[in-house]
Amino acid sequence: MTLIAETPEPPYVAVIFTSTRTEGDQGYAAMAARMHELALDQPGYLGIESAREDVGITVSYWADHDAARAWKQVAAHLVAQRRGREVWYRDYRVRVATVERDYGPS
Amino acid sequence: MTLIAETPEPPYVAVIFTSTRTEGDQGYAAMAARMHELALDQPGYLGIESAREDVGITVSYWADHDAARAWKQVAAHLVAQRRGREVWYRDYRVRVATVERDYGPS
Repeated sequence: MTLIAETPEPPYVAVIFTSTRTEGDQGYAAMAARMHELALDQPGYLGIESAREDVGITVSYWADHDAARAWKQVAAHLVAQRRGREVWYRDYRVRVATVERDYGPS
Repeated sequence: MTLIAETPEPPYVAVIFTSTRTEGDQGYAAMAARMHELALDQPGYLGIESAREDVGITVSYWADHDAARAWKQVAAHLVAQRRGREVWYRDYRVRVATVERDYGPS
């Protein structure tokens, strides 16, 4: 379960990961929980938001592009990415973006 | 229902809208469908992705910041934004970002 991430003042980096799943769990939920926990410990991690219906959208927030790139290269995450391509995801798109402004209701 | 948006080569703009809902529909689903349709007709619209579980995440993609700003100011959308603040959303965050790179499985 994720809520709205409490991110600092921009600029910071958003990695938007949109995916469609294959059928069945096949270890996916356990991996997702483990990757979420692992991300929390990475340098420059700012927060994560996630929801899935027809598509799954996970947005992770990072202090800068180096932090986002380092997370992509963490060994256990590389394994998950590979298994994602082979087993869990029908299709996906990763978009790396710089957040320039943000606002809420107040 | 949305799938993975077919966006062009970066750079382009992503507006990441994350929200938590109040209880009950209160006209929300109809508004969301209408806003989705309306967005399709806006200049510079590139695509949209949306999913909701504990949080709702809607990412709309735009050719540039002017296009994203123009959509924010469309009259019917302003009405929806106001009703969103008053009725539909417990909380929300809008993040405007420039997508600098993207990639998929292949």
